[in-house]
Amino acid sequence: MRYRATVSYDGTHYYGFQRQREEYVTIQGELEKALYSICRQPVTITGSGRTDSGVHAIGQVIAFEAAWRHESDVLQRALNAKLPASIGITNLQTVLSDFHPRFSAKRRAYEYHVLVLPTRDPIQRLYKWRVRNPLDMVSMNEAASCLIGSQDFATFGQPPQGVSTIREVFRAEWQSSANDLTFYIEANAFLYRMVRSIVGSLMFVGEGRWTVAEFEQALYSQKRGNAGKTAPPHGLFLTRVDY
Amino acid sequence: MRYRATVSYDGTHYYGFQRQREEYVTIQGELEKALYSICRQPVTITGSGRTDSGVHAIGQVIAFEAAWRHESDVLQRALNAKLPASIGITNLQTVLSDFHPRFSAKRRAYEYHVLVLPTRDPIQRLYKWRVRNPLDMVSMNEAASCLIGSQDFATFGQPPQGVSTIREVFRAEWQSSANDLTFYIEANAFLYRMVRSIVGSLMFVGEGRWTVAEFEQALYSQKRGNAGKTAPPHGLFLTRVDY
Repeated sequence: MRYRATVSYDGTHYYGFQRQREEYVTIQGELEKALYSICRQPVTITGSGRTDSGVHAIGQVIAFEAAWRHESDVLQRALNAKLPASIGITNLQTVLSDFHPRFSAKRRAYEYHVLVLPTRDPIQRLYKWRVRNPLDMVSMNEAASCLIGSQDFATFGQPPQGVSTIREVFRAEWQSSANDLTFYIEANAFLYRMVRSIVGSLMFVGEGRWTVAEFEQALYSQKRGNAGKTAPPHGLFLTRVDY
Repeated sequence: MRYRATVSYDGTHYYGFQRQREEYVTIQGELEKALYSICRQPVTITGSGRTDSGVHAIGQVIAFEAAWRHESDVLQRALNAKLPASIGITNLQTVLSDFHPRFSAKRRAYEYHVLVLPTRDPIQRLYKWRVRNPLDMVSMNEAASCLIGSQDFATFGQPPQGVSTIREVFRAEWQSSANDLTFYIEANAFLYRMVRSIVGSLMFVGEGRWTVAEFEQALYSQKRGNAGKTAPPHGLFLTRVDY
């Protein structure tokens, strides 16, 4: 039987989503270990995409084949009982055999969290990028709006060899509440480190280091070297994958 | 010169506020270590009160004597540079020599965070007590209102030997936003584990295990054995101390 599951995780202490050599603890590795101990046979999972070391998820989608004779909610509870507290299965159901979490995905949504605060905040440090100085949200949103549509995002991400760098962005906007800023971005797919590279570049605009026009120039140059700095991983959340 | 500082910390990986034997990492221990390396002489700090292992703070107040020849904001920055990311000094200023963070305190404020969710939430797990089932907020607030005023709280906390268990509670109320519940409590002072014991007992009311009248009976019995279970430490935050 094929299963589809929605997974949340605190990426802080993991070497990213994708399984690595045994000495690196990964989300995929922990999920497969839990499945192995429950199903008593090796199970390979597929995710909607890889998240980097330190990146979090509240809506990662995975799929796997498993021989399981009971209801899927029993499997979900068994998995949650085996998994560390930093990984949770929030939904699990059977799915048609042609469902593929990566290839069937139509849209992915990410959030990036920024905290504007002169002194450190120990409580929020693992989930928000803290910056000291106020940011110009109007300019950041003006620059973000240039991202909308189908275009070449080579500036903001390395492609797998020989693969197109054209992606379609459906949403790209900042919202703020007091000193919390959140960047929402949705696209059909993303290049490697694309969201963090976009966020880092938009921060250049917010800090006044770049004008909106300079951001546009960087985007349209399609040169990876023209991006701003890459934002740190801990502010990033994969929030939703649509099929 | 005597200094007063406001300290935030993520208590997750500490053996509480108070310095212990060397093998236990504590908030006080880390603060004194940082001060020692900056002032180059042993410095003993005093806090407004001890927080237990796993309890957080966003407004702990400490005081200490230190020979420091520069401005206090330079000392604050030096301390933050030395301290681990899980501890932060958010305010530091000189203070009169008779200021004592514990004895001079007039009011302490705590918050306790509860998350009502059927499945685990890895992102919020370190800062909220997750419970599966909805709680009766009206009854919980009715019970909480019995706590207001000056009375004997022996049910909810062990006193230091020979010390009164009478405390004055100024505020005790639950507020909710979607599936987040927060308990706010303020008093002149608190007994050991008093907030967690009160929260655990109020949860009995919210779950329907106790009526409001049974909560009142427990409170008025002044017997430690009559309290509900003690809520776990990770939902608790010391938020403010007033002088």
